[in-house]
Amino acid sequence: MKLYDCRTAPSPRRVRIFLAEKGLILPTVQVDLRHGEQLTPAFQALNPWCTVPVLELDDGTAISEAIAVCHYLEAVQPEPALMGQTPAGKASILMWEHRCEVDGFLAVQEAFRNITPGLRGRALTGAEDVAQIPALAERGRLRVQRFFQLLEQRLAESPWVGGPAYSVADITALVAVDFAGWLKLELPPACVHARAWHADASRRPSALA
Amino acid sequence: MKLYDCRTAPSPRRVRIFLAEKGLILPTVQVDLRHGEQLTPAFQALNPWCTVPVLELDDGTAISEAIAVCHYLEAVQPEPALMGQTPAGKASILMWEHRCEVDGFLAVQEAFRNITPGLRGRALTGAEDVAQIPALAERGRLRVQRFFQLLEQRLAESPWVGGPAYSVADITALVAVDFAGWLKLELPPACVHARAWHADASRRPSALA
Repeated sequence: MKLYDCRTAPSPRRVRIFLAEKGLILPTVQVDLRHGEQLTPAFQALNPWCTVPVLELDDGTAISEAIAVCHYLEAVQPEPALMGQTPAGKASILMWEHRCEVDGFLAVQEAFRNITPGLRGRALTGAEDVAQIPALAERGRLRVQRFFQLLEQRLAESPWVGGPAYSVADITALVAVDFAGWLKLELPPACVHARAWHADASRRPSALA
Repeated sequence: MKLYDCRTAPSPRRVRIFLAEKGLILPTVQVDLRHGEQLTPAFQALNPWCTVPVLELDDGTAISEAIAVCHYLEAVQPEPALMGQTPAGKASILMWEHRCEVDGFLAVQEAFRNITPGLRGRALTGAEDVAQIPALAERGRLRVQRFFQLLEQRLAESPWVGGPAYSVADITALVAVDFAGWLKLELPPACVHARAWHADASRRPSALA
């Protein structure tokens, strides 16, 4: 197995933290996103969506999309469980993970890619250039703030995002919140539960990944 | 178990088709999205994200987000398998399902919600009103067309979206393509493999769900 990664990028960090929690160390290939290595024919052959992470299996199968990579790793190394133990527990975790991705991570990404000068013309991931929409950057910021409120509501009633135990939902939420820092957005002081959760999640050694 | 559904909405159709493929019939509650029933306190208590589908378990646990509902149903009724059989097969299916959701379904939704007069102020799902961005509707349409090309590329080399067998990835792709019809966008004639796949998937009795 081999992981295509980019050390500075938030999206593969989801998998790096997941691996660290499992105690797994994989050979990695650093993909130079800044210089467009993800757009080369060689990389597109691996992942036509032009994103990292990609997990390449020994038979050459390439798995991209962070959540799909996590499902694979959970299947081949079940302990410690990061995706729940029972059908209902798993479903709750996956529900929260998905919410944190779409309404947290993707909202930050939307705000960031539509305003950052260095990403002009690269407002979306993928092979083709797409122009920035400044109004969308503004909307993305509002979405992130709304996400912070929903996270606070959740963490006022649950110790971890996905339920009673640390899980992949916490990983996606942590990566989303830290990515929001790139926009100078942080959990507001009133979000006391979310801030305490963030401190706990950040204290785990895996957060350095 | 009880499914909160909206008969006319594409998002819960993902679960309706999944259930039909499993041969499962659940009691359903129709949520009147047109008149804002998803925004009522009662519904927000069930799902603060204000979306359908929601699967309510017998103990009151509410599972929203279509993919999480599908994971639950697959766990409690494994046959026929709609999410793969091996770790690698499952990961490929989940990778494709996720691509079809984010770059297919969500692209259509973005285009639709940012241009439809009846959705003015409702450009995003969720409790709070959000103004439409016309430029985003236009971008959404381009994203959908790009998605069609990537789907064609995939189906030129694989009989089904997720691999050798029909799976949840086909369900999400089918719902996305049919939802694009609301924008008067369809798979172009040159997408011969994707069109043949669409005809096959639509011929299954589950497609009526």
